[in-house]
Amino acid sequence: MQDLIRDIPDFPQEGILFRDITPLLQDPQGLKKAVDSMAELLEGVDFDLIVGPESRGFIFGVPLAYKMNKGFIPVRKPRKLPFETICQGYDLEYGNNVLEIHVDAIKKGQKVVIADDLLATGGTTKAIIDLIERLGGEVVEFICLIELEALKGRELLKGVKIESLLKY
Amino acid sequence: MQDLIRDIPDFPQEGILFRDITPLLQDPQGLKKAVDSMAELLEGVDFDLIVGPESRGFIFGVPLAYKMNKGFIPVRKPRKLPFETICQGYDLEYGNNVLEIHVDAIKKGQKVVIADDLLATGGTTKAIIDLIERLGGEVVEFICLIELEALKGRELLKGVKIESLLKY
Repeated sequence: MQDLIRDIPDFPQEGILFRDITPLLQDPQGLKKAVDSMAELLEGVDFDLIVGPESRGFIFGVPLAYKMNKGFIPVRKPRKLPFETICQGYDLEYGNNVLEIHVDAIKKGQKVVIADDLLATGGTTKAIIDLIERLGGEVVEFICLIELEALKGRELLKGVKIESLLKY
Repeated sequence: MQDLIRDIPDFPQEGILFRDITPLLQDPQGLKKAVDSMAELLEGVDFDLIVGPESRGFIFGVPLAYKMNKGFIPVRKPRKLPFETICQGYDLEYGNNVLEIHVDAIKKGQKVVIADDLLATGGTTKAIIDLIERLGGEVVEFICLIELEALKGRELLKGVKIESLLKY
């Protein structure tokens, strides 16, 4: 699959080497293999819901939820979710942001898998974990396509089970 | 499925009745039924790729592409796609926007289905059609979960085959 990831230097800003997943998505076998391989990693994991952050978390979170017969919960940027929300600020690899989740997205005690395209510093994932736990959910795993090991996301997310398909 | 769509008055601004799809996504059977029903509508349609716009177009476009063994092409807001892009401005039901697509997303002559959650005025879809045609692709169908018939998207998109699961 790694041959379907395109390196883009200096995006979105100088000094960042961006891993572009669009060639993989564009390739029917690439997309299928990515989703199926993530689903395989989740086999045997006991969970109720998949949470994915806007926008690229939707790309893997929804087909995984569909394939595994689970519900999907979007986490979104401010003022995008129409119902009552709670929010959480966080720092990014570049800049900072706020994420929201609907207050009725997760019932107390539900087991949740977080899906995203990328693990970088782990800041986004940590904010999502905070949102899930504030609603009474239990994060059982974080799964992503690409892990940028040098950014040490695993250190920030210590205690969380993490699976990634491609490591850089 | 309509019982899993929640009406939110005055979102994102006064006078707009927003159809919230998150209860449907949250429900494993609801999500499965939505994707499977859209896939059924595409059975027998000859196409190569599914194009979906950020962010809610990713929600249905990716699982459809996955299920039907097609590639998925994201159309995104400005400065989100890392490679070379072309862009297209358009008017929204409220406000206006610009969308981008990678220049190498579609090969000349490829047949494309556009997927989204909603057909409102059709402005977003029209901009996506422009982008696809500028790259030499052929739009064979637009498929969405919800159609707001009063906003007459079909008139703006005259000549395009349109399928929707839920009509309001």
